[in-house]
Amino acid sequence: MTRTMNFNPGPSSIPLAVLKEAQEEFLDFKGSGMSVLEVSHRSPEYDAVHEETQALLKSLLGVGDDYQVLFLGGGASSQFAMIPMNFLGQGQVADYVNTGTWSNKAIKEANLLGKANVAASTEDGGFTRVPTAEECTFTKGAAYVHITSNNTIKGTQWHQFPEVDAPLIADMSSDILWRKFDASKFAMIYAGAQKNLGPSGVTVIVIRKDFVETAADGIPTMLSYKTHLKKNSLFNTPPCFPIYMVNKTLNWIEGQGGLEVVEANNRKKGDLLYQTIDANPDFFRAPVAKDSRSYMNVVFRLPTEELEAAFVAGGKERKMNGLKGHRSVGGIRFSVYNAIPMEWIEAVTAYMTEFAKANG
Amino acid sequence: MTRTMNFNPGPSSIPLAVLKEAQEEFLDFKGSGMSVLEVSHRSPEYDAVHEETQALLKSLLGVGDDYQVLFLGGGASSQFAMIPMNFLGQGQVADYVNTGTWSNKAIKEANLLGKANVAASTEDGGFTRVPTAEECTFTKGAAYVHITSNNTIKGTQWHQFPEVDAPLIADMSSDILWRKFDASKFAMIYAGAQKNLGPSGVTVIVIRKDFVETAADGIPTMLSYKTHLKKNSLFNTPPCFPIYMVNKTLNWIEGQGGLEVVEANNRKKGDLLYQTIDANPDFFRAPVAKDSRSYMNVVFRLPTEELEAAFVAGGKERKMNGLKGHRSVGGIRFSVYNAIPMEWIEAVTAYMTEFAKANG
Repeated sequence: MTRTMNFNPGPSSIPLAVLKEAQEEFLDFKGSGMSVLEVSHRSPEYDAVHEETQALLKSLLGVGDDYQVLFLGGGASSQFAMIPMNFLGQGQVADYVNTGTWSNKAIKEANLLGKANVAASTEDGGFTRVPTAEECTFTKGAAYVHITSNNTIKGTQWHQFPEVDAPLIADMSSDILWRKFDASKFAMIYAGAQKNLGPSGVTVIVIRKDFVETAADGIPTMLSYKTHLKKNSLFNTPPCFPIYMVNKTLNWIEGQGGLEVVEANNRKKGDLLYQTIDANPDFFRAPVAKDSRSYMNVVFRLPTEELEAAFVAGGKERKMNGLKGHRSVGGIRFSVYNAIPMEWIEAVTAYMTEFAKANG
Repeated sequence: MTRTMNFNPGPSSIPLAVLKEAQEEFLDFKGSGMSVLEVSHRSPEYDAVHEETQALLKSLLGVGDDYQVLFLGGGASSQFAMIPMNFLGQGQVADYVNTGTWSNKAIKEANLLGKANVAASTEDGGFTRVPTAEECTFTKGAAYVHITSNNTIKGTQWHQFPEVDAPLIADMSSDILWRKFDASKFAMIYAGAQKNLGPSGVTVIVIRKDFVETAADGIPTMLSYKTHLKKNSLFNTPPCFPIYMVNKTLNWIEGQGGLEVVEANNRKKGDLLYQTIDANPDFFRAPVAKDSRSYMNVVFRLPTEELEAAFVAGGKERKMNGLKGHRSVGGIRFSVYNAIPMEWIEAVTAYMTEFAKANG
């Protein structure tokens, strides 16, 4: 098998070691004589996976028992509605920072259910950066502040999180665990698994228990964080296999040496990509402001759309997949989540330089 | 590997052939150089899975293009709320038939969001049967009628569906595709995958398109069937791997010879179990009325709880797993979904007879 260099924005690469482990025990999970797909979600076998995954994530994030890890279905997009349903009371306002498509979707759902205030927006500049602290006007007494920590489409990322008084909520779908950060500043972090945590099918939520206690009552059972906190995400059958893959991915992160090592690798990968772009300023153009550049989604343009198409096609011949930018913005995008090895970055940057030389 | 005989109520057994196929291509899906867990949900590779799964299910159910197959996360329990949100308008009434725990949960959510009328209930008899047609009092002009086709906990099953004027909705989580039936009588069928369709993590919905058109507007995007119909369940990233496993399971059903063969096998399995129970009336007691007996969940009692515990323990020694009845009712339960082979039924019925002889 020749492994494709997979730069898709998500679902994306999963560490090969993780896949191999899962494959090996696919028919017989821990000597149970059953696949992990077949064991009951109320069995000791599954329970160990569930609990260990929660513990690993809390340990990697450095949060204690005042936080709970939840595993929900429906994708991060479902959280866009659940958050205001649970936490945006009548007469209250929630602050949202608008940094692009995903923030916009979150704002739309909040406005369906209550009142969202846009505390800052970088729409004027085409969302090519995240706002500075001075640009954010937070509402006194806001129900919460919502940010999108990394923007897959525009390729921007918060490198310093805003200091706020209200409970801070972050959609970290595309950059959770890319580096060490102070998770205790957040009331709630949520992330679809299919970028840095595993395959699609589960949304991982890290939430402060006392924040859950402030949630509204009387909302549908499955849409209430109180249900999932109380039942430890086992009110109904959870998406067991995606959770199991998250478990393996977290163990892999630990095995790499934890978030310090993962962050160092990610910085090396991103730096090499941006250096390659900046080294050819007449050929490559990175639209994102330098201090907002994402280490997860590196976006850039070539001189013409024809050259971009040729670059993508040439990449495919080299087994480099997922190079095309999001259809709404065009250009090139490398999504370089935790699982992407440095060798792939070396291969693509060599290709970039070669391509610029041949076509510049 | 000795394969455990897995009689869990769900997640439950998946055909070994299906598991082996998935294992074999786990690292390289259709020559893509990527695992099926890693391919983009917008790739041609995944698209083929998505479309084929929809087509297979429609073909097995014998429904045409007036129906749409949706794949949602969040489990069937999420449907309990989504159904009234979408289809129970202000001032309207929805009819629910109460046949136990799962119906009850659906009724609870409907009453949170609107008005549920209990058109029939067999609670008085301890839910040991489903109601007759004469017992059901449906509301004229009801928004819809909701039934639970099979009741995993009590071991009852509808063998003849009620004739109703309102759109008929069925939670078929635990018996979808166990036999041929006239699916065109239903406006909506939904099922968590983890019994007859594959692993947990996806809820499969078969819904009439013109019924979706009657759904309310202005509800949260991810909770609206209109969203998922319009976007073909690709508004956001779907639970790709669970859907892929459903695909393999449906192909396996086709390979068996389709629903006629599956039904014949299920009847043989259930009949042998009930015959074994009925052959030892002094030792085994089946609480369910004969015409309501489930072919998916066969429940019975032994003379004492001690004997039941001994039976479960003895089963474990024989690699028979998941024999204990639901904690709310006790006793013994064999969940014998499509994937359970006849040989396992032969093994457990032999064990039952032997156990009855030894302890009777």
